[in-house]
Amino acid sequence: MPDSTPPDAFDPAPPDAPASPPLPSIRHGGDDAAAAAWPDAPRPLLDLSTGLNPRPYPVGTVAPDLWARLPQAGNQAELLAAARRYLGLARNARLATAPGSQMLIGQLPHLVPPGPMTILGPTYGEHAPAWARAGHRVETVTSLDAARATGATTLLITNPNNPCGRVFSPHALRALLNAADGPRLLVVDEAFADLDPTNSLAPHCDHPGIIVLRSFGKFFGLGGLRLGLMAAAPVWVEAMSQRLGPWSVSGPALAIAARAYADTAWITATRARLQQDARRLDTLLTRAGFRIVGGTALYRLVEHDDAAGWVDGLGRRGILVRRFDDQPQRLRVGLPGDEVQWLRFSTALKEAQPHGRSV
Amino acid sequence: MPDSTPPDAFDPAPPDAPASPPLPSIRHGGDDAAAAAWPDAPRPLLDLSTGLNPRPYPVGTVAPDLWARLPQAGNQAELLAAARRYLGLARNARLATAPGSQMLIGQLPHLVPPGPMTILGPTYGEHAPAWARAGHRVETVTSLDAARATGATTLLITNPNNPCGRVFSPHALRALLNAADGPRLLVVDEAFADLDPTNSLAPHCDHPGIIVLRSFGKFFGLGGLRLGLMAAAPVWVEAMSQRLGPWSVSGPALAIAARAYADTAWITATRARLQQDARRLDTLLTRAGFRIVGGTALYRLVEHDDAAGWVDGLGRRGILVRRFDDQPQRLRVGLPGDEVQWLRFSTALKEAQPHGRSV
Repeated sequence: MPDSTPPDAFDPAPPDAPASPPLPSIRHGGDDAAAAAWPDAPRPLLDLSTGLNPRPYPVGTVAPDLWARLPQAGNQAELLAAARRYLGLARNARLATAPGSQMLIGQLPHLVPPGPMTILGPTYGEHAPAWARAGHRVETVTSLDAARATGATTLLITNPNNPCGRVFSPHALRALLNAADGPRLLVVDEAFADLDPTNSLAPHCDHPGIIVLRSFGKFFGLGGLRLGLMAAAPVWVEAMSQRLGPWSVSGPALAIAARAYADTAWITATRARLQQDARRLDTLLTRAGFRIVGGTALYRLVEHDDAAGWVDGLGRRGILVRRFDDQPQRLRVGLPGDEVQWLRFSTALKEAQPHGRSV
Repeated sequence: MPDSTPPDAFDPAPPDAPASPPLPSIRHGGDDAAAAAWPDAPRPLLDLSTGLNPRPYPVGTVAPDLWARLPQAGNQAELLAAARRYLGLARNARLATAPGSQMLIGQLPHLVPPGPMTILGPTYGEHAPAWARAGHRVETVTSLDAARATGATTLLITNPNNPCGRVFSPHALRALLNAADGPRLLVVDEAFADLDPTNSLAPHCDHPGIIVLRSFGKFFGLGGLRLGLMAAAPVWVEAMSQRLGPWSVSGPALAIAARAYADTAWITATRARLQQDARRLDTLLTRAGFRIVGGTALYRLVEHDDAAGWVDGLGRRGILVRRFDDQPQRLRVGLPGDEVQWLRFSTALKEAQPHGRSV
């Protein structure tokens, strides 16, 4: 990011409400610009605008050598072995590592010859511009049938989808690839697939028409560590690795993630806890008048006729949620991390009811 | 890096020496494959094959939030402000951040329209293949005059050069750019420019024909942290930032580097210490029979008629130095880090004299 990055764009304030602050887009989690929109809000902010697990995998002590030396082949190999087991990776598939799945999202379109491609949406907003920048003609559709009808040879889906949580089974996706009029290349963003590994295509991605993108930071709650994986047939992985060059992932990230992917006790317990917490969040949100319309165990997608009012009401109380420019009645709400945060959020939900938001 | 990465290529053993192990290329520091070539060497290995400062900037305690949250705009801004002051950056120039200067080396050629380009060499081996992959016709020349004679519009130099240490002054490089037959674009890899900031083009790189690449890990001794900077006019920085996407640098890297770039006491003391250590290393190497032919304070370039013998003799004692396939009589030797390492190296230099190498 350059130091010329402008502050995030703000939506214009409606002309009949000059006293209201403009609502920040909160396009991604933890946006400092969003925080600035409510300067009087109590600190620290409670950032529920992300899909990150708020109770991170314990980083522990980082050996000084991991910072000092170039990332070592041995550390890389340990990470890849642990990730391979964790993902149940197809035996003949390979893994490329990147400093975050965002980097993979940006680079992957350059590996595919430019042409018509389809995105199943609405979904994570970084995919479409990345493919367009690489010269592809991007069409967004809302169903697999519509995707087939476009005749595009490349289809991208997020599975489970962000934000709605829609899930396709490996069976359905393999059938799509096998269909005479199906796509030849299926890119699956599995950023939230850690929650339920049974729907992952990683065990199938020795198929040269399947590319799987994985994010380390979300389920393991370590978004600042920067690690993403691409699982695919060797030809794809070699091309991506060539593009990224050596040592793109830090030494500490390799070591921490290798330990995390191998920690089956933590993984099992965390999956169960996140499911519980998601149900608890649903209860709070439903009581406050929201309709639950989807999500995963790391975030819930809700609707409210006055969603913009809620964004402001919660923001004044130092709580950030995710809104969508193209779906103004919807919000995405992440999980509080500890009992203090749960209490703060439930209290804010009571205080910020639309009829009382002016207080 | 994919898990399909082959082990580093080994040079074939000479046919008249079947008992000798093949010599690893040690193309980059800390290569595990190199270590495997001398399985009986005493551990830990002493890796003098890199140009990394062996006494790293103190990492200190990393706040948990830096691992957990996505890298924050505030952390990015702090790093950029500190780096701008440290570099004496031209007021209208900007900085792009990347997870290591290697990533910048790989991506930069894609920002320049393919055409003839010249590299002043021999130099760091990653530049030429990166430009070739992006479709440029790469010619390597050995002098600025020869570079001008090619008529290529793009010239890349490493300043100071790696491995020979050749330095051009900003005055000479500005004159080159101003010459009617000079290059239109000058790319300067300043990976080792921290040692003597007076020769950096960073204060000049508001000029749209200057792009400066900087490495954080070498001088600060934190190669595993992964941070590189590109200093250039806004149009270049925006293009690079677009290519890398957001959050390519980890939260801990942003925070540690911001502190390091602002730590003028450490920087000043380290520059002085490295100069002293380089003189001490020259004394040892000269006594052992090497000719000092160049280098910087972070590494020395030496010649010996039996350089390959030295690589093996030191390797058997667990000490790695850098050799060059195209300059078989030359070695690059980095600095030992503490007195134990200095003693080990000086002892090995005595024991591994060519006449006694069979022990």
